[in-house]
Amino acid sequence: MSLPIITIGRSFGSGGRIIGEKIATLLNIPLYDKELVQITAEKSGFHATVVEQMQQNKPASLLYSLSGSVIEYPLQDQVYYAQAAVIRDLAKKGPCVIVGRCADSILEHEARIMKVFIHAPVSQRAARAKDEYKITSKKPLDYIKYVRKCDKKRKSYYEYFTHRPWGKAEHYDLCLNSAMGLDVVADIIVRAAKEFPEEIK
Amino acid sequence: MSLPIITIGRSFGSGGRIIGEKIATLLNIPLYDKELVQITAEKSGFHATVVEQMQQNKPASLLYSLSGSVIEYPLQDQVYYAQAAVIRDLAKKGPCVIVGRCADSILEHEARIMKVFIHAPVSQRAARAKDEYKITSKKPLDYIKYVRKCDKKRKSYYEYFTHRPWGKAEHYDLCLNSAMGLDVVADIIVRAAKEFPEEIK
Repeated sequence: MSLPIITIGRSFGSGGRIIGEKIATLLNIPLYDKELVQITAEKSGFHATVVEQMQQNKPASLLYSLSGSVIEYPLQDQVYYAQAAVIRDLAKKGPCVIVGRCADSILEHEARIMKVFIHAPVSQRAARAKDEYKITSKKPLDYIKYVRKCDKKRKSYYEYFTHRPWGKAEHYDLCLNSAMGLDVVADIIVRAAKEFPEEIK
Repeated sequence: MSLPIITIGRSFGSGGRIIGEKIATLLNIPLYDKELVQITAEKSGFHATVVEQMQQNKPASLLYSLSGSVIEYPLQDQVYYAQAAVIRDLAKKGPCVIVGRCADSILEHEARIMKVFIHAPVSQRAARAKDEYKITSKKPLDYIKYVRKCDKKRKSYYEYFTHRPWGKAEHYDLCLNSAMGLDVVADIIVRAAKEFPEEIK
């Protein structure tokens, strides 16, 4: 059975990126996470910093700016659609792991995908923000606040572009609590990918 | 590593009960699903039919009936608490699989549990309602309506008693789309259970 494309949604600090790396290594397929920023920048002409920033912002408004008779999409939307085109192109090349970027929604009707969502208790995510992502703060509670704020941005971004709720089990094939262990979770995903049906109706 | 208690929440027609049976057989531990109706009836004095019906009803109201100076809980609440006591007692006996009954919430702070949620595309669930549960209807669309109606009841019941959203990934350790295959899903759960950490903080 051939491998599907694996899309990974994740709450902030849940270790989704690390798990994505493990899966890509175990299955010997490419991983696209931050790499997508550079590729999108090269293909679209937007500066990499702009591409990156636009994914971290909460969508500002549903209103498009009107410039004379020309309707102009907000910059964030323009970057999103440029990146979506990149993701569709990459998907044509074969199995890969794509972390974030609403790839589950972008590829849903265009490729054979296995949709994964990773989450973890907020205490573990706050610890990861501090120890691994090197976020600095004075009070322990600030890390929890930071994690929740990042989640809120991801949720807004995802729901604005996909029109579906973020982190609702029924929209994914597999949701996992990474507190079960990053290696255990990666192994489970690899196993599911190897046995993923050719078609889900 | 010892096995956790496995609680299985499931959308209607997703095959959660069948998966529960497979897991219990593979791990050689007891399964509690409809068995809980009889045990609760025996221990509480409520008739089994009442116990069963009360779980299929949407909670009617948040108001308790006032009878003189005595506040009386609605019958559904009384049955729920009787069954919760049964679930707590069974949990003390060792690892088992418990299907539905808000067991994830009832046992959360009282036992080492692995919380699982099973779902599937509505088309597959409608087919299961027709072919396996022998629900009879004239029009194909009626099966889909029936499945959605049952989901709505489960969601109301769960959210009324647990005060948390039904089917939201972050409240479970593992959520799976049973369209990946009942055996594949059962195997994944068994594997996760065997490697489940002693403590999740």
